[in-house]
Amino acid sequence: MVASLRQHIGIKEISLLLDELFEPLNRIETSDIFDDRCMGRRLHSDVVSLRNIPHYPASAVDGYAVRASDTAHASTARPVRLTAESVHWVNTGGWVPEPYDAVVMIEDITEEDGTILLSRAVSKGTNVRPVGEDISRGQIIGRKKERITPYNKALFAAAGYRRIQVLPLPRTLFIPTGDEIRSLKTIESEGDLRPGTVPETNSLLLSGIFNQWGYPLDVHPDVLPDDPDVIENTVREVLGDYDMILLGAGTAKGKRDYSAEIISSVGELNLRWIRMKPGRPVILGKASGKPLLALPGFPMSALVATWAFVYPILKLLEGSGPAREIPITEGLGSPEKITTKLLVHHSSSQGIAEWLRVKCADIDGEKYSWIMPSGSSTMWSIAEADGFSLLPENALEHPKGSPLQVWMVKKVDWEKRALYQGSNDPGIERLPSFVKARGAEMVIRSVGSLGGVMALARGEGHMAACHLLDPESGRYNTPYIESLPGADEWKRIHVYNRLQGFLVPRGNPKGLRNVNDLEREDVSIVNRQSGAGTRVLLDALLTEAHISCQNVRGYETIAITHLDAAGRVAANAADTALAIKAVADAMDLDFIPVAEEPFELYVPRKFLDHPGVAASLDALEDPSWRKVVEAMGGYIWKN
Amino acid sequence: MVASLRQHIGIKEISLLLDELFEPLNRIETSDIFDDRCMGRRLHSDVVSLRNIPHYPASAVDGYAVRASDTAHASTARPVRLTAESVHWVNTGGWVPEPYDAVVMIEDITEEDGTILLSRAVSKGTNVRPVGEDISRGQIIGRKKERITPYNKALFAAAGYRRIQVLPLPRTLFIPTGDEIRSLKTIESEGDLRPGTVPETNSLLLSGIFNQWGYPLDVHPDVLPDDPDVIENTVREVLGDYDMILLGAGTAKGKRDYSAEIISSVGELNLRWIRMKPGRPVILGKASGKPLLALPGFPMSALVATWAFVYPILKLLEGSGPAREIPITEGLGSPEKITTKLLVHHSSSQGIAEWLRVKCADIDGEKYSWIMPSGSSTMWSIAEADGFSLLPENALEHPKGSPLQVWMVKKVDWEKRALYQGSNDPGIERLPSFVKARGAEMVIRSVGSLGGVMALARGEGHMAACHLLDPESGRYNTPYIESLPGADEWKRIHVYNRLQGFLVPRGNPKGLRNVNDLEREDVSIVNRQSGAGTRVLLDALLTEAHISCQNVRGYETIAITHLDAAGRVAANAADTALAIKAVADAMDLDFIPVAEEPFELYVPRKFLDHPGVAASLDALEDPSWRKVVEAMGGYIWKN
Repeated sequence: MVASLRQHIGIKEISLLLDELFEPLNRIETSDIFDDRCMGRRLHSDVVSLRNIPHYPASAVDGYAVRASDTAHASTARPVRLTAESVHWVNTGGWVPEPYDAVVMIEDITEEDGTILLSRAVSKGTNVRPVGEDISRGQIIGRKKERITPYNKALFAAAGYRRIQVLPLPRTLFIPTGDEIRSLKTIESEGDLRPGTVPETNSLLLSGIFNQWGYPLDVHPDVLPDDPDVIENTVREVLGDYDMILLGAGTAKGKRDYSAEIISSVGELNLRWIRMKPGRPVILGKASGKPLLALPGFPMSALVATWAFVYPILKLLEGSGPAREIPITEGLGSPEKITTKLLVHHSSSQGIAEWLRVKCADIDGEKYSWIMPSGSSTMWSIAEADGFSLLPENALEHPKGSPLQVWMVKKVDWEKRALYQGSNDPGIERLPSFVKARGAEMVIRSVGSLGGVMALARGEGHMAACHLLDPESGRYNTPYIESLPGADEWKRIHVYNRLQGFLVPRGNPKGLRNVNDLEREDVSIVNRQSGAGTRVLLDALLTEAHISCQNVRGYETIAITHLDAAGRVAANAADTALAIKAVADAMDLDFIPVAEEPFELYVPRKFLDHPGVAASLDALEDPSWRKVVEAMGGYIWKN
Repeated sequence: MVASLRQHIGIKEISLLLDELFEPLNRIETSDIFDDRCMGRRLHSDVVSLRNIPHYPASAVDGYAVRASDTAHASTARPVRLTAESVHWVNTGGWVPEPYDAVVMIEDITEEDGTILLSRAVSKGTNVRPVGEDISRGQIIGRKKERITPYNKALFAAAGYRRIQVLPLPRTLFIPTGDEIRSLKTIESEGDLRPGTVPETNSLLLSGIFNQWGYPLDVHPDVLPDDPDVIENTVREVLGDYDMILLGAGTAKGKRDYSAEIISSVGELNLRWIRMKPGRPVILGKASGKPLLALPGFPMSALVATWAFVYPILKLLEGSGPAREIPITEGLGSPEKITTKLLVHHSSSQGIAEWLRVKCADIDGEKYSWIMPSGSSTMWSIAEADGFSLLPENALEHPKGSPLQVWMVKKVDWEKRALYQGSNDPGIERLPSFVKARGAEMVIRSVGSLGGVMALARGEGHMAACHLLDPESGRYNTPYIESLPGADEWKRIHVYNRLQGFLVPRGNPKGLRNVNDLEREDVSIVNRQSGAGTRVLLDALLTEAHISCQNVRGYETIAITHLDAAGRVAANAADTALAIKAVADAMDLDFIPVAEEPFELYVPRKFLDHPGVAASLDALEDPSWRKVVEAMGGYIWKN
């Protein structure tokens, strides 16, 4: 059945379609309020108190319960004397039984010969908390759809409840599929991960998200192969046990066609292609009234499809209300939306909403953000992001400095976070842990040596570091720095020297000796990005040797970090790269030394008291960090 | 040992004392990232990737893997022909094995006679994601103390982890004590709750709070009696199994002395009396280096003591950092702090910090708040509060209109919440559930008929309702309303008529007939607060009967609601009360009719489109609500 198939819809149309397709589950569940799994569940209906609280007349003080009428004529001049038999001792909270109707505080009493003397009359009800003072039997103490909190579950228990009727929690099953996908179980039995296979991790991502939302998620024990019959049979088998089925595609293309086929065959296909990026290939259908969803395989795509589709469907099924009342970003569970200023220009595509991973820092009272690598296969930037943005369909160009709204998923201590922009350096990359141990935070943005000092001059960071050779003078750093506005107000810290050289596979199979070999036809390199100090050094070496970059194979192939460059040499994707010795050692490569360069850090003096900066500078002196750096190799202390 | 006993300290000194007394647990724990209980745990140390991601050269497209050198001379004019044996098909994400080093997209190929034709050269690495492109082996992918999120646990799994070292979760035991306290188990075995006994509910409050924090809490299976030996022996028995012991006092006074004695005897007593309200009687000590805390018994007192002491101790023990770096309100777990304008004056005590339960509403773009009943025994207002405030020691007078900061614990949909101020009415109290079913919210603040219409005239609410008799004219409502500024812009809705009368116990034991009996010496009443329509009615009746209020016993005894007044008559705390028939029926009392009064609702026309108001007015027409109202009795529809 494809009667109602919609294609290429925009994100605003999603919720309307969901409301059209699905209905709340017709099921009442019961939750034991003495079991913490009740937390966050929503009340199925109004809860009325089964008891008065207090359920007996309770004394508000420590003292004697009396009959008020016995005290009517008491005065300082003529105290009333009551026998022990006509009064009754009560503690605070204790029962004031009939015929007593008031309590005299112990402080207002004189005891004498086993009797008590009262010098003041008390009226009926004095110091007695009447029955139902806090809550009356029959009073509404919880409203339909409200969540169970620590506060109201204690109240429900006091009001006589042990179990409470709650809205149903939809039961969801995630079925990972894909010939190339390996479950943890399989990886453990196979010993390690073979080339061409990928560990199944989307179930971890999803179960964590469901856990944050407070909904259960089951994961099918096996990763199903790319066999439509197997997948279809499995869906038919499990459909009765669940309220929603999520099919997880592999990361390879072509398979989603299976999903559409399978959904059409089991039920009806309702939606293909969403105008959002990533997450475009989401497929939605329905069988026996239940949602069947095929999620894309790449982590970021799966994540945004989960936010945009799975969350509103769960809320709808639970009975919280229609999907159209749920903001599309609510699934992020972000407690905070902030407005930031973009540090770099961003272009997005016409007619497609775009999800972004964003990192932020506060510089001089202004919150800045930058967009992280956007590949949907990238897991690192999902985990590293402070928050996410959703650019609407009609937003195209976002110039540097323009506002960007960010839904924060991490708690950032803005005042303690320092932003480092500059050269990529494995030693510096180890520093944030030592900064964190000092109660502050250092965030690193690798933009190259030149990018870092220029950003610092523009006021876009707290710290920068560089190692920049001026080929004309043969001097490092100073020729670049001294021309920058405000640089005379920077504190300059010589962190260490680093050994730069050519990385080659162990044994140097191509017999490279120096820069001249880069001209050889059988030698390819991997280069660093423009503005990186290491690229500046390579350019200087090539100029000195009179080699045109056009004659260097791989000159245009870019790695953003030393480690990335080393990894490509290790993987035989290039024959050599200019990089520091530390990464040669890490990647078990041989190293042909070329230069020893000073690696310097700069901090505008006005930031020296910034807690993140102060902690970073302090961490540079930490013997444990220095030990870590020394163990990497190729670093030379100069102080 | 009492060497280091501190007394009467201010809340700012708490964290310094905790840092002085306690140290992080010296224990590493391991968390299975495939088990969702890992969520929120903090990393014990930096996590480095065990794998490159991708761990093999992966194709970025669907196409043929080739040797780049084989394609070097391809051009449109002279396509290169490659045999099936010299190429290798790969899917997106698939492995590009040696000797292949580039991938040609399927779109750029012509297949012919079992061979493929290439009209463009590709360079080494084209369409190949190099090993470690996302993450390199050895790269730091999680920093010490960071929390495990859905995002990083998926990443850790991809990076080769199954288990991760995490900071320890402190093990806490809560031991409820108190002769008058009954556990659920005891209540179930005894059938019901006897007078003088109180259900043990603080364990539910605490376990919910711990659950929100992500820390475990065990509750001792038995409520211990007020016997210092039993309590002390139990503490000694369990001390080895836990990192912190919380003694829960009963609500009765005097017992805390036991706790101090017990703590002194088992270890050392470090702190008594905090200058905060409620929560003043917290007691803190230490045994075997472990915190021993005695929490007050009243729920609100236990709650604030938990926020102020237990939360920072848990963080400190876990190793998250020193207590002095934790704001005292962090334990509330509030995602949002807002500034509101006080609707009513509040006075607090000199030299004592005060915790407040607060309810809020947004009126015309301005957020207002009011403080809820402050008795520390009151559970209702804890559950009902939108948030909490902490007034510092030096804050004394908080006039109406002054700013109040509120840490929100409930999510409020400000635009959909309408504030009703006015007469207390059981029918109206049932309305919010029907408003909620319409996707909006109605919040009721019972301030009496007069208070409601005056607040509305001051712009302090969206709706008001009253039933006010003008004794001179004998007319209801209009004489009061017409003099109020802006009232000519109010929509006036006649909701229903209500029967007012005297409530008396079944059988009318004192034989009351009418208002004249209120002068009798053997008759006492419970009255309503000043400004309540029912009190206005009583005053009119008394005036008409020429009875001075000084001759009416209980005239000064106040109940805030009809149900409260009825409850007191039912509990024999008063002989009669003027109230509506609905509560007589609810409380099984006899009813002596006195008057039928019009109950009217007022809404400024500018609020008629407010979603909360619109839903409230719509709900007034709901047949299901009307059915509920009719079942209460004493309501007469006039339309």
